[in-house]
Amino acid sequence: MKKNNIIYADNAATTKLNSDAFEAMIPYLVDNYGNASQPYSFARKPKQALKEARTIIAECINALPEEIFFTSGGTESDNWAIKGTFSQKKEQGGIVTSVIEHHAILRACEFVERLGCKVSYISVDGSGLTTASELEKNISDDTKLVSIMYANNEIGTIQPIKELCETAHKHGALFHTDAVQAVGHVKIDVKELGVDMLSASAHKFNGPKGIGFLYIKKGTPIYSYMNGGSQEFGMRAGTENVAAIVGMAVALKENCLKIQDQTIRLKEMEKILLTVLDEAKIDYKRNGINQIPGNLSLSFWGVDGEALLHRLDLMGIVVSTGAACDSVETRISHVLKAINLESGYSNGTIRISLSSENTIEESADISRAIVKILKQ
Amino acid sequence: MKKNNIIYADNAATTKLNSDAFEAMIPYLVDNYGNASQPYSFARKPKQALKEARTIIAECINALPEEIFFTSGGTESDNWAIKGTFSQKKEQGGIVTSVIEHHAILRACEFVERLGCKVSYISVDGSGLTTASELEKNISDDTKLVSIMYANNEIGTIQPIKELCETAHKHGALFHTDAVQAVGHVKIDVKELGVDMLSASAHKFNGPKGIGFLYIKKGTPIYSYMNGGSQEFGMRAGTENVAAIVGMAVALKENCLKIQDQTIRLKEMEKILLTVLDEAKIDYKRNGINQIPGNLSLSFWGVDGEALLHRLDLMGIVVSTGAACDSVETRISHVLKAINLESGYSNGTIRISLSSENTIEESADISRAIVKILKQ
Repeated sequence: MKKNNIIYADNAATTKLNSDAFEAMIPYLVDNYGNASQPYSFARKPKQALKEARTIIAECINALPEEIFFTSGGTESDNWAIKGTFSQKKEQGGIVTSVIEHHAILRACEFVERLGCKVSYISVDGSGLTTASELEKNISDDTKLVSIMYANNEIGTIQPIKELCETAHKHGALFHTDAVQAVGHVKIDVKELGVDMLSASAHKFNGPKGIGFLYIKKGTPIYSYMNGGSQEFGMRAGTENVAAIVGMAVALKENCLKIQDQTIRLKEMEKILLTVLDEAKIDYKRNGINQIPGNLSLSFWGVDGEALLHRLDLMGIVVSTGAACDSVETRISHVLKAINLESGYSNGTIRISLSSENTIEESADISRAIVKILKQ
Repeated sequence: MKKNNIIYADNAATTKLNSDAFEAMIPYLVDNYGNASQPYSFARKPKQALKEARTIIAECINALPEEIFFTSGGTESDNWAIKGTFSQKKEQGGIVTSVIEHHAILRACEFVERLGCKVSYISVDGSGLTTASELEKNISDDTKLVSIMYANNEIGTIQPIKELCETAHKHGALFHTDAVQAVGHVKIDVKELGVDMLSASAHKFNGPKGIGFLYIKKGTPIYSYMNGGSQEFGMRAGTENVAAIVGMAVALKENCLKIQDQTIRLKEMEKILLTVLDEAKIDYKRNGINQIPGNLSLSFWGVDGEALLHRLDLMGIVVSTGAACDSVETRISHVLKAINLESGYSNGTIRISLSSENTIEESADISRAIVKILKQ
């Protein structure tokens, strides 16, 4: 399959690197390779680039530059938020999270549970939505941290973060949100949301892989997760990956500038895609509610989702089944289980995640291909 | 200062990216961006590249491919080795390390100390060398892990890893070595050394920043440090940074193929550099013993090392003072203190770290510049 012929619709798994971001990375990969933490003039350009990137990223989410901490990606940001709050013996306290979090959160929570931290998992409704009142039932004044994802990576549901955050704060708990699927795709204003921490991953918004950040509100009590050198204001050790950081900043800025236009385009694509299915009288359900733009988690009655994925693959259409990050081990994902989808549907679930790289025509083509396969 | 005019001699801090490595990365940054953990054909090339890179890297250190775990760099590898062995409540036991380890080890050890792990720090002699008998004095049958760096990042001293490892094993302890300064610079054979874990960082051997690996001998009991998806055989979560991994493999292979030739060249450069200083009757000491090729930690009597660094910088010569990774906070580094260098010398210490990019002529130029500054 030639790459030019494929329709790539698995943007929730990873995105194509923005070409401006790539161009911006090259000087820091090739010429300006100096270690940004060194004091000599050869380190000036990477140091300056690092500073500018931090400022750009901070502006994109209405944070201060010194509240942005670069990490190796969403997984590290999530691990840091959970373990950095807990994995020191002297201070314990509960954590509340949801049953549909990404594994980076769920497994980091299991880790701190083994250290003696009590973790409560709040449930979601059939749309994958949780509410402040649901959180209220699970939170106590011993709760130290609440971590709820901004948008689910499978079904796209956007949570009422501001309300959840207010509930957490009312009980004296910190609030973290895994916004890996949201940053660069919907407008994020950390001050407006009130969150204490927020995770992001560059390759989910057309930046490079292997880089991300954790927003940490000034004054938030958190330990360093990656110990060593004094990089990142002494909070995250390791030689700064300047090229990737620069690429991330360029990609995020470009994505943020076009969010409104893209949202309209993506919603149009979604509509056309669903219309083709409807017109062909296909029996399917769309999962989630208030989904992140471009996310279509579709469950086809009586269909084998994995077989559908492979048939689409043969036709040059790239989608995924329920889970993105570890398709190897999953059949019915924890998310589809949590929303109580009937097995007749859940087995037949695929996730189509469109991006600004896709076209209206491609959206219709995806559906036409599905119809062709299912009607055979 | 134009980049073409500088003499870059801070290769222990970071190295220039190998141009073949850069070229090899491009297809995975630009076109083959598919998520390597996905099951469709668009993920085939990155998946294959990942497999090949793992095999190449394994061959470079005589490991099995399944013993190579990709990380975000040396700091993560070191944190993983220390914390992955310890930070679970149920199993405790002592750790023995040396006083001259990199901060990534020392601060990770402080972290596990706070979790109740006993950490012993073995001393080094005036050359920065420790011995099996010194380890023998500090180890007990409760020791769970010994972590001693392969080559020191400041003074270059290579430790007797094989003997230290045998001593650790005799007491039932695991052995880890932080080989960040050594991999790609001296021949490393993990089977011959007998080590259980070994840390490496790509940007120290002309690979890209933000990527490294931890060698973990098959069967070594260690917990995952980065929890989440099932990447890296379920041991290190996070979307694979394929481009950087490919770049790392190309760089390491090229470096390993020319180690012998390079060592001869670097030793020749060192000799010339020192000869110029000797002929000018400069009062200096070279620190360390059995140094990693190209490392010259030089202490000039009665000189301000930082001022010397900046004077050299103005002349287009890039070196560092004692510490590499966090020059911001250090005056006299913990390494120079550990080797009991007289303060008349330690204040006047610079580290020159040459690479295959340097020339014989440049080595002499560095010394001539130092002589010029000191004789003024």
